[in-house]
Amino acid sequence: MNLEKLIKPKSIAVVGVTDKPGFGRGAANGAMMSRIADHAYFVHPKREELFGKKCWPSITALPEVVDCVVLCTSSKTVPGLLTEAGEKGIGAAVVFASGFSEEGTEEGHALEEQVKGIAHRYDMCILGPNCMGLINNIEKVNMWGGHTHWDLEDDAHGIAIIAQSGFVSAEILNTDFFNVSYAISSGNGNICTLEDFLYFVIQDEKVRVVALYLEGVRNSRRFLEALRRAAELRKPVVILKAGRSAIGAIAAASHTGSMAGSSKAFESIFEKYGVIVARTLEEFMCLAQTMSVLNGNFPRKKEFAVISFSGGESTLSADVAEETGVALAELSEETKAEIKKYIPGFAAAKNPLDATTSLFHDDDKTIGLLKAFQADEAVGAITIGTNVKNTGDATTNELCGAIAKAKAQGVTKPVLAIPSLENYRYRESRRVLENAGVPLMSSMGTSFSCLKQLSDFAVYDASKRTLIPAVPEKHDEGKTVALSEFDSKAEMRACGVPVPDQTIARSEEEARAAAERMKKPLVLKINSDQILHKTDAGGVKLNINTADEAAAAYREILDNVAKSMPGAATDGVLVQEMAPAGVEIIIGVTNDKQFGPMLLVGMGGVFVEVFKDAALYPVPLNKGEARAMLEKLKSYKMLTGYRGSKPCDIEALTDMMVKIAGYAYEHRDEIKEMDLNPVFVYPEGEGVCAVDALIVKYTD
Amino acid sequence: MNLEKLIKPKSIAVVGVTDKPGFGRGAANGAMMSRIADHAYFVHPKREELFGKKCWPSITALPEVVDCVVLCTSSKTVPGLLTEAGEKGIGAAVVFASGFSEEGTEEGHALEEQVKGIAHRYDMCILGPNCMGLINNIEKVNMWGGHTHWDLEDDAHGIAIIAQSGFVSAEILNTDFFNVSYAISSGNGNICTLEDFLYFVIQDEKVRVVALYLEGVRNSRRFLEALRRAAELRKPVVILKAGRSAIGAIAAASHTGSMAGSSKAFESIFEKYGVIVARTLEEFMCLAQTMSVLNGNFPRKKEFAVISFSGGESTLSADVAEETGVALAELSEETKAEIKKYIPGFAAAKNPLDATTSLFHDDDKTIGLLKAFQADEAVGAITIGTNVKNTGDATTNELCGAIAKAKAQGVTKPVLAIPSLENYRYRESRRVLENAGVPLMSSMGTSFSCLKQLSDFAVYDASKRTLIPAVPEKHDEGKTVALSEFDSKAEMRACGVPVPDQTIARSEEEARAAAERMKKPLVLKINSDQILHKTDAGGVKLNINTADEAAAAYREILDNVAKSMPGAATDGVLVQEMAPAGVEIIIGVTNDKQFGPMLLVGMGGVFVEVFKDAALYPVPLNKGEARAMLEKLKSYKMLTGYRGSKPCDIEALTDMMVKIAGYAYEHRDEIKEMDLNPVFVYPEGEGVCAVDALIVKYTD
Repeated sequence: MNLEKLIKPKSIAVVGVTDKPGFGRGAANGAMMSRIADHAYFVHPKREELFGKKCWPSITALPEVVDCVVLCTSSKTVPGLLTEAGEKGIGAAVVFASGFSEEGTEEGHALEEQVKGIAHRYDMCILGPNCMGLINNIEKVNMWGGHTHWDLEDDAHGIAIIAQSGFVSAEILNTDFFNVSYAISSGNGNICTLEDFLYFVIQDEKVRVVALYLEGVRNSRRFLEALRRAAELRKPVVILKAGRSAIGAIAAASHTGSMAGSSKAFESIFEKYGVIVARTLEEFMCLAQTMSVLNGNFPRKKEFAVISFSGGESTLSADVAEETGVALAELSEETKAEIKKYIPGFAAAKNPLDATTSLFHDDDKTIGLLKAFQADEAVGAITIGTNVKNTGDATTNELCGAIAKAKAQGVTKPVLAIPSLENYRYRESRRVLENAGVPLMSSMGTSFSCLKQLSDFAVYDASKRTLIPAVPEKHDEGKTVALSEFDSKAEMRACGVPVPDQTIARSEEEARAAAERMKKPLVLKINSDQILHKTDAGGVKLNINTADEAAAAYREILDNVAKSMPGAATDGVLVQEMAPAGVEIIIGVTNDKQFGPMLLVGMGGVFVEVFKDAALYPVPLNKGEARAMLEKLKSYKMLTGYRGSKPCDIEALTDMMVKIAGYAYEHRDEIKEMDLNPVFVYPEGEGVCAVDALIVKYTD
Repeated sequence: MNLEKLIKPKSIAVVGVTDKPGFGRGAANGAMMSRIADHAYFVHPKREELFGKKCWPSITALPEVVDCVVLCTSSKTVPGLLTEAGEKGIGAAVVFASGFSEEGTEEGHALEEQVKGIAHRYDMCILGPNCMGLINNIEKVNMWGGHTHWDLEDDAHGIAIIAQSGFVSAEILNTDFFNVSYAISSGNGNICTLEDFLYFVIQDEKVRVVALYLEGVRNSRRFLEALRRAAELRKPVVILKAGRSAIGAIAAASHTGSMAGSSKAFESIFEKYGVIVARTLEEFMCLAQTMSVLNGNFPRKKEFAVISFSGGESTLSADVAEETGVALAELSEETKAEIKKYIPGFAAAKNPLDATTSLFHDDDKTIGLLKAFQADEAVGAITIGTNVKNTGDATTNELCGAIAKAKAQGVTKPVLAIPSLENYRYRESRRVLENAGVPLMSSMGTSFSCLKQLSDFAVYDASKRTLIPAVPEKHDEGKTVALSEFDSKAEMRACGVPVPDQTIARSEEEARAAAERMKKPLVLKINSDQILHKTDAGGVKLNINTADEAAAAYREILDNVAKSMPGAATDGVLVQEMAPAGVEIIIGVTNDKQFGPMLLVGMGGVFVEVFKDAALYPVPLNKGEARAMLEKLKSYKMLTGYRGSKPCDIEALTDMMVKIAGYAYEHRDEIKEMDLNPVFVYPEGEGVCAVDALIVKYTD
């Protein structure tokens, strides 16, 4: 499969051209606008010409073997046309038509399978069906099925947008402020998948940022490989994941036919791979445009300096910064003294700065301020309030000009223009700013959410993450078996997780012997897969301190169980050291169908259950990643010494998390879930202990 | 003080007119555009005329006693001109100049005090200083000091905007999609305060919605009276409170010279009075515009039906709805059957609805869908995806037209047009929608935040709230005294709050007698204001069951304390019944400097401290309000029966909260704070008990 022929074709043929509204007209217009127009052919069985351009009667009749055919015809014609193209040796196709698997009908699925078969037979790359097409704005090839504001003369601003929704991609291309290198509407995505496109554009040097509108993933391994490549290249990937909510997930699944997936699993994958996350289309476009204009000039640290022109604007900036988690830089005294030179006497030199409107019409002041922030080591990036009107105005134009001058005079840190009101992005102002590498963002609320993402990306370091996909080879959904507590803990101990010393006694003598050998006090529990509530069944005895007590407890447990659950199969009694109580932690593993095992950690008791205070992260992971999981907990302070208690042994806890994650990774094809609850964490230097464990595996 | 002369003047004089950029030109232009232009005079000491209009040499020389003078001159000239106006009998003035208290200088404060004195002497209403002026778009009077897109021929859309930031108000008036009845830039607000303006515009019948950009309140009683009036009239008040964050609060205080106030206190006031809360200028404008276009046609219930035109758009709507707390209506089977008539066979009838683009160019389908949702009782309001482009386009125009037709054909429920992308608000599309009572909102993310506010307002019911301001008469900041535990609990018992039976024993005999009389077990504690950590001092004895034990404990406590804290003054020993343990609750009262006592409630232990899980609400309050406070707690489920425990006596708990709030209200001038910790809540029907209490009062 050669994606080059689809994405960078040197010759194309548009089949089913027309002058009526629809795909046939859109694609015909696009072909004529393309730089390869001399090798762009129209095909129509009856027409001689359209828009002054010759029509060929069939694909077979074309004068050259084009790289790609663009089919604008209805679903039923598609198999025949593709076969014709395949026979001629054509390696790629764009199929706009709907009426395939997305309809959920048997015919639709059958038709799509047929197309897939043809693609396979002729080793053909197929975009669609049920898509809006593809634009390559680097080599200037337009195979888009609808109207777009696309200006092929525009600079390619380096955004590769891939969208799993034709409407979303069409609406974005209909705006006039979002310039892209590639636009790919991936349609049903069963033949060439969005993961194929993702991997392709991430590798492309001309692509500055990848923007992905995502409903569900089909090939999760390929998806993670692509994200890993992006992380290693430090190429920003902005993802708007739709289907995060319960209702949205159902909608996404029915819309694309792919699994929407667990939204928490996606979140944790995005965190691990440094994905820039958008929640709305507005954030999506703002983030993509911002990253493309910055063109690799990302902040080195996450603290921002904020310049505004009024008390109101600076006050609101402070509020929104706090509410969105955007960090504000602590200015040095030198910086404050420098700032004082450019603001009125009554204004205070602080961050956010109310520079007052005295800056307007005075380029030197604006430039001076930007240079002052440039010089301050605490500042990672600078924002400047810029209310760009629809029609432009003198104040805005001068301000944009001054910002551009400052950039030319050595302000190398990222500068971001942020309107306090809804933004109109006046084309000329935008051009002045963008040419200087200054993104013009959305209005303040949206922008600050985006700044938070930008600052997370700024401090993201792929080298500190364990970017090894843990996607299981087989997605076993069959029967499961729960390992006994004894076996579960034995597995854990084998991989280095501290658990209490334990043995199985199958007679009074064995119980007595164990008690003599082991550290007291002990706990004895019935060993049975079939008894879930051991205490209720009289199957647990605590605080056993002597061999005699152990023997008596053994007897008593078997008697109790025989009475309370006469039918239950048992296998002796578990004899275990009683671990001293510590701070209670829960560690779990769930095996995500798409992305494999995920480690979960939270405080024990009500914290996880009532407050949902738990962190989730894909395995495998290192100690730094484990610690970051703990730090994300709202209850983290209970581990660091709370109300005079000693700080907990976080070192030992993270070590344990790494080992459990390692086990889950090794056994990713077998395990369904793991539950270590409680884990006791002791004061610093005193370690941890998994007091109970449960491992559930898929049976063969 | 007669605000009419300032806000609805029938004649004005602009002093200091000029043709140079600035206040003097802005106000001169405004005056000429005003409907009262025949009674609008220019004053200039040297010029004969400006813009073809005669200039009078002084205020004294004016041919009539105008209602209001508009001073465009510098700060130093202001006292003289105001005195001149006062002597002539002029009752109102607008003062643009800065250089007063906002500069924080002694001269600035003195100058403002001087102006205040003049206002008082002549009973003159003064807007400013340091403001942008006032526009009355009902009677068409423009006294604005800057440029604005203001079109006096436009309909007044019923928004009264009051802003404590000149820049914010100027930027809003510079947009072309925000039509208002009144715009008031309140400036320093020390003479006529923003609370005066607020009260005035709330009463005005022509005002559909009040939009207040607020940094701090000066007259909190007046502020609450205004909000109460609005709540009673069911007139929407949208407030953007700046200074919510720590840094923002400092900025706001220095900007306006008013206290930013506790942001939690403001939040709770807004909740009680049904204020519509905006967090950004974009939300602020969107909410105000939305409420004005709805013009009283608010949703009757909070569940929305969402119409969109693609799978992507509907999926994102579902996500954003969940994330912003917007409720989606559960559609009836009848509605679903009806919807099916207007969407393609493969599309599902659900909410959010992907109606597919087959609706475009087919008014009947759009109208049919809107009518289907109109007929469904579960639906409070309907949103419809409407991507209005900058230049308009056929699809949008037809869609807007179809929506308007549906409204004309009996779709009386609120319909809200929501773009999925950044919104351009094409003027013609907007006009079509707004004329039909359909607001065109901001892009999806912002809009859904606004829908949440709209739905909260929809279900707000002033009659169920205790809208009695509790602002203290005196703001005592002096010394405080803590009541002893005994006295604190005695006060609580006196107002009906259940506390354990208690007495003070000042001898062994009294301890013995108390023990004989009271219900056992008992606890004995040293009674002393000076011993905070009673247990550490050996001053507490638990589980006393007999008179002998009580006598012994009495002796022991006095001995211990004499040894551990020899200098401490004591007053006998507190003998108290030991309340059985229940679910632990904390109830507190803080006395907000501006708004008076606020009740706080949260779960005991780590919940309040680690998770900040507490609710705050202004006193006094009723049982419904108390219950709503509890329901807001994340830990609320621990009161309703958790992990098999019995449901708690919420009835008794809310009764207790009402009584504590009542006490705090009665004593609002005296108490600094109260702390009832722990309060034990017992199972349903078994009541509550405040085991410990502390009341801190201001001393006289």
